[in-house]
Amino acid sequence: MELLTIVTLLALIEFIYFGIRVGGARGKYEVTAPATTGNEMFERHYRVHYNTLEQLIIFLPALWAFGYYIGQYWAAGFGVVFLIGRLIYGVTYVKDPASRSAGVLLSIIPSYLMVIGALAGAVVHFF
Amino acid sequence: MELLTIVTLLALIEFIYFGIRVGGARGKYEVTAPATTGNEMFERHYRVHYNTLEQLIIFLPALWAFGYYIGQYWAAGFGVVFLIGRLIYGVTYVKDPASRSAGVLLSIIPSYLMVIGALAGAVVHFF
Amino acid sequence: MELLTIVTLLALIEFIYFGIRVGGARGKYEVTAPATTGNEMFERHYRVHYNTLEQLIIFLPALWAFGYYIGQYWAAGFGVVFLIGRLIYGVTYVKDPASRSAGVLLSIIPSYLMVIGALAGAVVHFF
Repeated sequence: MELLTIVTLLALIEFIYFGIRVGGARGKYEVTAPATTGNEMFERHYRVHYNTLEQLIIFLPALWAFGYYIGQYWAAGFGVVFLIGRLIYGVTYVKDPASRSAGVLLSIIPSYLMVIGALAGAVVHFF
Repeated sequence: MELLTIVTLLALIEFIYFGIRVGGARGKYEVTAPATTGNEMFERHYRVHYNTLEQLIIFLPALWAFGYYIGQYWAAGFGVVFLIGRLIYGVTYVKDPASRSAGVLLSIIPSYLMVIGALAGAVVHFF
Repeated sequence: MELLTIVTLLALIEFIYFGIRVGGARGKYEVTAPATTGNEMFERHYRVHYNTLEQLIIFLPALWAFGYYIGQYWAAGFGVVFLIGRLIYGVTYVKDPASRSAGVLLSIIPSYLMVIGALAGAVVHFF
């Protein structure tokens, strides 16, 4: 399962990168902790980070369950789409939140397909 | 471990459902991204989603560790209580946040019991 | 892998503890749900809880991947540093958010090292 581990760790590195950008935005736009609101640009970076957190709690278990029941190469392929989709999401959201749709879809569709596929696989194996 | 996979994926589907409701509330109550405050009803949906995220990071590892050290059928049973508790939480919180106690308890008690049980099981196996 | 399970569960218990403090702060400072802003002290507790959530989604997969590819004793050691770092973070942040640096570094450095080490290990095993 090296492939799924590599995809998992790359997703974590992407998430860490978004977090570092939040830290940078905190300084640049002078949003003092514990505040997370008050500056539109900071809030965009913050939302990119937290939306990715929401997605990771779905993506990571789905990746491994799908890899186990359906196949690790398919899972890794969906994983790469997720990684690219998240990057597009992060870039476009900061430029203009209204332009985030493509990045959202490219990252949620792989996750949703893996959730459904893994559920079907697990149910079939159970009976 | 098909049973625990099925419970895991159902918990993710429940979380996705809460997330979709946040998206719907964003449109309905005209809360434009990146804002997450300013409308009480939107904030209720948003908190249901994020509180469930907080719970999942506890529930998922606890479910698998408890299933491994204590037994998968007990884990799956606690998992079903969690799934129902979260649904009650989501429905009651949106109606009136003050009425959320039952849903909170029904979802944290299974998680807390599994954390304690799994810790006891792992410690006993270690020595 | 009892050791990694024990570290995982202790990290969850630490996170649960931070969450209970948020609940207490909600009552003490009269921040009524669904609000999460409006009182500086409440916001400090809230940020400690959520920053720990951000860290756990990195720490937990990194701990297990590093434990698998590099060694469980090294992983458990880094895990203990993380657990202590988080505790320092939680205590110092609530006293004064500007003093949080030591706790931040002591909890992110073990995670980052484990992400990099696990990635190197998985890549080497893959080829």
